[in-house]
Amino acid sequence: MQLQVALDRLSIPAAADIAAAVRPHADWIEVGTSLIKEFGMDSVRRLRSAAPDRLLLADIKTNDNAAYEFGLCFNAGADAATVMGTADTQTLDICLAVADTHRRTVMIDLLGTSEAQQQQLLRYPAVFAVHVSKDVQEADDTLVGASAPPTRRLPAWASDRQVAVAGGITVDEIAPLGQQYPHLIVIVGSAITGAENPAAAARAFADAIAPYPARELLSP
Amino acid sequence: MQLQVALDRLSIPAAADIAAAVRPHADWIEVGTSLIKEFGMDSVRRLRSAAPDRLLLADIKTNDNAAYEFGLCFNAGADAATVMGTADTQTLDICLAVADTHRRTVMIDLLGTSEAQQQQLLRYPAVFAVHVSKDVQEADDTLVGASAPPTRRLPAWASDRQVAVAGGITVDEIAPLGQQYPHLIVIVGSAITGAENPAAAARAFADAIAPYPARELLSP
Repeated sequence: MQLQVALDRLSIPAAADIAAAVRPHADWIEVGTSLIKEFGMDSVRRLRSAAPDRLLLADIKTNDNAAYEFGLCFNAGADAATVMGTADTQTLDICLAVADTHRRTVMIDLLGTSEAQQQQLLRYPAVFAVHVSKDVQEADDTLVGASAPPTRRLPAWASDRQVAVAGGITVDEIAPLGQQYPHLIVIVGSAITGAENPAAAARAFADAIAPYPARELLSP
Repeated sequence: MQLQVALDRLSIPAAADIAAAVRPHADWIEVGTSLIKEFGMDSVRRLRSAAPDRLLLADIKTNDNAAYEFGLCFNAGADAATVMGTADTQTLDICLAVADTHRRTVMIDLLGTSEAQQQQLLRYPAVFAVHVSKDVQEADDTLVGASAPPTRRLPAWASDRQVAVAGGITVDEIAPLGQQYPHLIVIVGSAITGAENPAAAARAFADAIAPYPARELLSP
């Protein structure tokens, strides 16, 4: 497993401080969509500097204009960028091609996709992000947590694709997830960024993840 | 009809210059998604200053985290902001509620939506953006232009909803559009921003639009 720390709804200096603090424990630092839309590519550049030796994901959630948006992210120092699974096939194809040229990674966000769309998307050598949206979580907290553990939210194909999972994941949920899906990228946001000690919170997740060594499942 | 000039893939100074130049002829200035993702809310603030007396649309293409993203746009001076029609219902509901609080407008981008989804979305008092994505247009230019005029691309319900239409629209296409859909918002990007004289290009569209007075169809 790998740990991705998502930085959202923060100023750039606050996000950079947290990135630097959690750096020893995180495999990935995520430049959240809210940072990109509030501060633009400056957010990617500043977090690239704050965590130069970590993998950096730009959660740009591309819907169109893929070459331009993915070019922005990769030129600003991102190792990976996100595209919406609901985008046109042409947009997805361009994301994969641009990432291939830059030798970077595409993450496909499955928010709003049907099962039929997901089956079509699985042909791409990408990371698939499975998550409950922030707005849905805030409207109904029974969709995450004890009543809906992440093991139950993952689709059947999650065993043999590179999957990133997000949505209120707790340290206690890591072991059951890791036993079943040792290749997962676990995305944690406010449980780390909102903690009194973000570094300690990140270390707790990293310790829980350690028994489950990462595997690469990028190629279908 | 109304004219919306979309500013995309430009530096902020270049976009501000064009906004100021086309201001007398445009009803709406669109802060394109590419400007928001490259420069953040600074792009919205700077174009607000460049065209203080025009309607300003922030094409933020929200997929989630709606209160935060729409709050950013409205606080930066936008009169309207976009949300993806593929977003969760909770996200769309929040966009409408935040817009209502700020007395601003929601534009729902129908990219990637099915006809069934569109029927569900029509209950919202919003502007509906109908367009061929940039990436699809660039892959197949027969999907816009003479072989696929915008009158043929509009859905049946476009007659009694507030619709904005984009995608390679030319001055010659305005009259047939206006005769059938006098309430349309016509979105024009590179045909104006890429013209040698953007003000003259905007004026040509405005002159073509003038015979078709705008109607408001925001409420379903």
